[in-house]
Amino acid sequence: MATRTVAQWTGGMAFDIELQGHRITVDATAESGGRDLGPSPKSLLLAGLAGCTGMDVVAILRKMGQEWDSFNLQIEAQTSEKHPRVYTDIKINYIFTGKNLSKDKIEKAVNLSQDKYCGVSAMLKSTASISHEIIIEE
Amino acid sequence: MATRTVAQWTGGMAFDIELQGHRITVDATAESGGRDLGPSPKSLLLAGLAGCTGMDVVAILRKMGQEWDSFNLQIEAQTSEKHPRVYTDIKINYIFTGKNLSKDKIEKAVNLSQDKYCGVSAMLKSTASISHEIIIEE
Repeated sequence: MATRTVAQWTGGMAFDIELQGHRITVDATAESGGRDLGPSPKSLLLAGLAGCTGMDVVAILRKMGQEWDSFNLQIEAQTSEKHPRVYTDIKINYIFTGKNLSKDKIEKAVNLSQDKYCGVSAMLKSTASISHEIIIEE
Repeated sequence: MATRTVAQWTGGMAFDIELQGHRITVDATAESGGRDLGPSPKSLLLAGLAGCTGMDVVAILRKMGQEWDSFNLQIEAQTSEKHPRVYTDIKINYIFTGKNLSKDKIEKAVNLSQDKYCGVSAMLKSTASISHEIIIEE
């Protein structure tokens, strides 16, 4: 399957990027010579990771009959000092609120995503160690 | 340096993601059980790649005294059939319009980005072969 994208330079360090009919702007911060019109390109990888594993976990937990009130992911990543600057450590917190949630089932869903299904995680693991924690707030 | 992001599940398969004060929505397509409210998470890696190498090339060509009228990147990526689905081949076209552009200088800038500076490219190279072509339209 082919995925296509087009990025158009819009002046300074900014690019408008088309993805499946949706538009994203990336830019550098002011201190890096940009105008901060959008997030940094590299940080989109963390957004991709959050969405990829988040969707996996939603789909798997639904099949397990789990329900929740809220679900969010907090990701913190460390970057190498030397060029090319890559992510070296990524910590993902999976945070749920809800009653009758099974931590065992959530752990199973997260492990299935991280070990088997999430392509973004598989790509980032080449340079980064990825760890996670599951937090359930009632 | 730590980079942080938070992704909030907003129902269905959709997540709202905060990146450095900017907001991105990701979603699955209708055929994958989503509502197509935003691009797929994985495709954000291609947007990150476009922005990362695009900004490198802009910065390097400016130092070389090059000027151009327009610059865009077209990226096409192939995905593996098996889980986890990762990018296996990525082709990047760097397309410039302008007078007095030096293809040698652009080639040098692109190679510096791909071989030395672009962290996104360095991360994606673990699973994908990345090739490029430079196109100058007057």
